[in-house]
Amino acid sequence: MRRAEFSIQEQQEIDNFLNEMSFGFLGTVDKDGWPHITPLNYTYQNGHIYFHGSKRGAKMDEILASQKVSFAVAKEFAIIPSYFTDARQACPATAFYKSVHIRGIAEPVEDPHEKSVALSGLMEKLQPEGGYAPITPEDPKYQGELKAVSVVRISVEEITAKFKFGQNLKGERRDKVMGGLNERGGAEDEATVELMKKYCPAHKKE
Amino acid sequence: MRRAEFSIQEQQEIDNFLNEMSFGFLGTVDKDGWPHITPLNYTYQNGHIYFHGSKRGAKMDEILASQKVSFAVAKEFAIIPSYFTDARQACPATAFYKSVHIRGIAEPVEDPHEKSVALSGLMEKLQPEGGYAPITPEDPKYQGELKAVSVVRISVEEITAKFKFGQNLKGERRDKVMGGLNERGGAEDEATVELMKKYCPAHKKE
Repeated sequence: MRRAEFSIQEQQEIDNFLNEMSFGFLGTVDKDGWPHITPLNYTYQNGHIYFHGSKRGAKMDEILASQKVSFAVAKEFAIIPSYFTDARQACPATAFYKSVHIRGIAEPVEDPHEKSVALSGLMEKLQPEGGYAPITPEDPKYQGELKAVSVVRISVEEITAKFKFGQNLKGERRDKVMGGLNERGGAEDEATVELMKKYCPAHKKE
Repeated sequence: MRRAEFSIQEQQEIDNFLNEMSFGFLGTVDKDGWPHITPLNYTYQNGHIYFHGSKRGAKMDEILASQKVSFAVAKEFAIIPSYFTDARQACPATAFYKSVHIRGIAEPVEDPHEKSVALSGLMEKLQPEGGYAPITPEDPKYQGELKAVSVVRISVEEITAKFKFGQNLKGERRDKVMGGLNERGGAEDEATVELMKKYCPAHKKE
């Protein structure tokens, strides 16, 4: 699914998920054709992904060589044991999760203003309680750091999302999974039941 | 760091981490040179990563076209706010995490015995409480499923790990971060302090 295929509500849910999660996985390709994955903190602003890091290193070399990158964010909500729906076969065992995948063009940000806005967004996300001087290019105490740090912008070309919460389950099987989750009562199980209700097409019609 | 560079203790810690975590991120490269990331459940057995999935789809096409894959597993333990060590500057803000990166050659497993051992390992990891008939190629009720499902083995060529717990912090700054974590008392903060003690070179010498 490309971006244009999402409803406004779906796009809002993707945006919310990207804003809630603290770290994602950057995919690059090295000169020998190997994919390379780097976990990193990020911020999602104005439809772009931003992250920061060192100006040197394998990741930056790969970005400069090929700007085609991927970026994935995922959260596992619940492992669904097979016995929720089948007393014998292991096959129904699965996991429910949200994941968002982005393809985009990665470029180092040179403009000090855009750099400081991106870093401010990262701070607001990861340290919402504050406790630091605002990051601006005018602040002489930040000027050296702003030059020294590398900020990369991923301009999103394609965004796809999979929110897997048993949408394929029907009737009794869906009820059994919901019942099993309610009974187990793990940390995210109640939230998972609510997401099953939210996303199950059959449930929506009831 | 290549595998050979790890001490037995470090290798054991990497193995433990791979066995504790339920899902990781597979990196593949598509025919147009784009990296592609897929989150999936996996099992780590005999030094190989195994995962299962559908026989068709983008991921399998990419694996069959280029067997060079990456696999990453990461867990964020703590966001470290800047004010733990600096009352003004945002720059010390960081995150502590464990991450393991694998490069390897991915191949579909055809042997029904190896397939069933891999799937059994996946079940033992994700459903340790049992509640299913053992998966064997001899069980007629599993034979159809074993043929239908695809199991992929990643033969590890290189494994690198980064366990980032403030190893670069010295003296007072390290004490401030530990103090801040103890005071905050978040879900993983106590565990993070223990890992700081475990991995900090300065601390080891004390």
